[in-house]
Amino acid sequence: MTFNTKILLKTKCIGEPRESDFEEVKEAIKDPKEGQIRCESLYLSLDPYLRGKINGRHISGSIFPGDLMAGEAISRVQISNDPKFNEGDLVISHSGWQSQPIIDVTKANKIIDHGIPISTYLGIMGMPGLTAYAGLLKLAEPKDKDVVLVSAASGAVGSMVGQIAKIKNCRVIGIAGSDKKCDWVTKVAGMDNCINYKTENLTEKIKDYCPKGIDIYFDNVGGETLQAAMEQLALYSRVVLCGLMAQYNSNSMPTGPNPAWTIKSRATVKGMVVYDHEDQREQCMSDISKWIKDGRIQYLEDITKGLGKAPEAFSRLMRGLNYGKTIIKIND
Amino acid sequence: MTFNTKILLKTKCIGEPRESDFEEVKEAIKDPKEGQIRCESLYLSLDPYLRGKINGRHISGSIFPGDLMAGEAISRVQISNDPKFNEGDLVISHSGWQSQPIIDVTKANKIIDHGIPISTYLGIMGMPGLTAYAGLLKLAEPKDKDVVLVSAASGAVGSMVGQIAKIKNCRVIGIAGSDKKCDWVTKVAGMDNCINYKTENLTEKIKDYCPKGIDIYFDNVGGETLQAAMEQLALYSRVVLCGLMAQYNSNSMPTGPNPAWTIKSRATVKGMVVYDHEDQREQCMSDISKWIKDGRIQYLEDITKGLGKAPEAFSRLMRGLNYGKTIIKIND
Repeated sequence: MTFNTKILLKTKCIGEPRESDFEEVKEAIKDPKEGQIRCESLYLSLDPYLRGKINGRHISGSIFPGDLMAGEAISRVQISNDPKFNEGDLVISHSGWQSQPIIDVTKANKIIDHGIPISTYLGIMGMPGLTAYAGLLKLAEPKDKDVVLVSAASGAVGSMVGQIAKIKNCRVIGIAGSDKKCDWVTKVAGMDNCINYKTENLTEKIKDYCPKGIDIYFDNVGGETLQAAMEQLALYSRVVLCGLMAQYNSNSMPTGPNPAWTIKSRATVKGMVVYDHEDQREQCMSDISKWIKDGRIQYLEDITKGLGKAPEAFSRLMRGLNYGKTIIKIND
Repeated sequence: MTFNTKILLKTKCIGEPRESDFEEVKEAIKDPKEGQIRCESLYLSLDPYLRGKINGRHISGSIFPGDLMAGEAISRVQISNDPKFNEGDLVISHSGWQSQPIIDVTKANKIIDHGIPISTYLGIMGMPGLTAYAGLLKLAEPKDKDVVLVSAASGAVGSMVGQIAKIKNCRVIGIAGSDKKCDWVTKVAGMDNCINYKTENLTEKIKDYCPKGIDIYFDNVGGETLQAAMEQLALYSRVVLCGLMAQYNSNSMPTGPNPAWTIKSRATVKGMVVYDHEDQREQCMSDISKWIKDGRIQYLEDITKGLGKAPEAFSRLMRGLNYGKTIIKIND
């Protein structure tokens, strides 16, 4: 390959992203300067927060038309111009939607082999895994037999939240957007129940499954799902606000639940941003890799081949049509 | 007095309460049964949460048309039919809007004299004082030099939150609904600034006074004030949701702030209900009485004479036209 293929944001999306919002360009590959590495991208992560960046409403910064699309990726070092990296090293970095990125070594992390497939370093062994691990264990502090509700329960974060909660001996109810997803959540991931919010009455089903209320709600979506959960919190419950899937596609910022629900339940509601929890990463990766090897954690990946398919896959993700952690396989 | 005068809720209020929503009735006084005391009421507390009870939306229960209006009062024992109480004892109980209540002794607490005027046991030495004390110190955990914003800052709870925060070496910005209230907040209660939300641009003024954001927001009102505060939270801020003055007069339940503000600031938002904090009461009363005697705490009481004036005073309170803790003086 003598060209670096890049996918840029062409126009700011309106509502759900379309393939025509993106464009592919090619540029001659360059050599890395001092303190840089040139890599070939292997796996690219697609995540809902990227849509928030396009709207200019994400704390990690904005993506403007003409910009390279952002995203975390795993790549292999081709040429290193830094003593800390060697050809063939596997690295993870926010190198975006491109095939042969030049990366500042200060922004790349070597992948430490835990004997797990490397694509998982974008999912349960990566940022989504750490989000679930720190968000649940550090912010929500689950206790034995707590009733835990988690939205987007077959997604990268939600599936981990639910499974870690099961390991911590909680009763876990997932929420997902199709029967196929719900089947995976209960039959493979081992959560106790799963509500299909598209076909079932969410409020009634939460009442059925949580007759004494919700002790922990881990929210990946916001919107009506958050509202329904807040109305059914148990006393002294904990709510982790982590994702806003229900509003990423919107150009306006909707309202949220009335504060009365928080008062009534004496809940503690916390905002979760994964960047705050780097101190947990080592323990997280050690625990999660062990749980995977012990067969206590299952994961679901929605892998599409070819960088050129990223716009289409991102569009599917933002319509909730993905089935598990959305990943683009760029190279072997 | 040979009659017990009672004020009942006549009709469920629509919007702000009117005097015609209440009616006065008289009944012959009775003798207390075993385990009861008959008292003469001295001071009656009027509080915004009573409006929530009329709407059927308060955790302490509802008030229906025909019911005695609820409320906390201080009274003096006239006849005791229980060995633990003697004639002349001063007690505090939720005996409601009546002049000569019969009270079950299990529901009455003797007032322990701290050398402070007894009306304060309905305000800063009572439930509002404990609300402020436990809500600020236990839930919000103020640190040296924290920037604290408090709404209803001349009210019974807000004025204490602001002054305790000053004692804890915070910078304190109050929000109140008139220039007269704001003057009291800064010149008497010693808070650093006060915003008149009716005449000033709340968002802009918060920006001016909190250029690095709000570390603690103590919310007594909800509504647009809560929204404006959430948008300007500092990282790792704490929000105490305590009162909903902005919606008590409403028959519908409005929405609240978008969850994105909590996520962005990694805030911890907690619901505050004073009944959970009885374990703090002794320390609270000891600290507050000392602070009063040391001249470090000021308080403002809006006292109206005569039980018959309670509907009018309650109506003023629910229009924000009170000036300090609203109290009805029934007897000397």
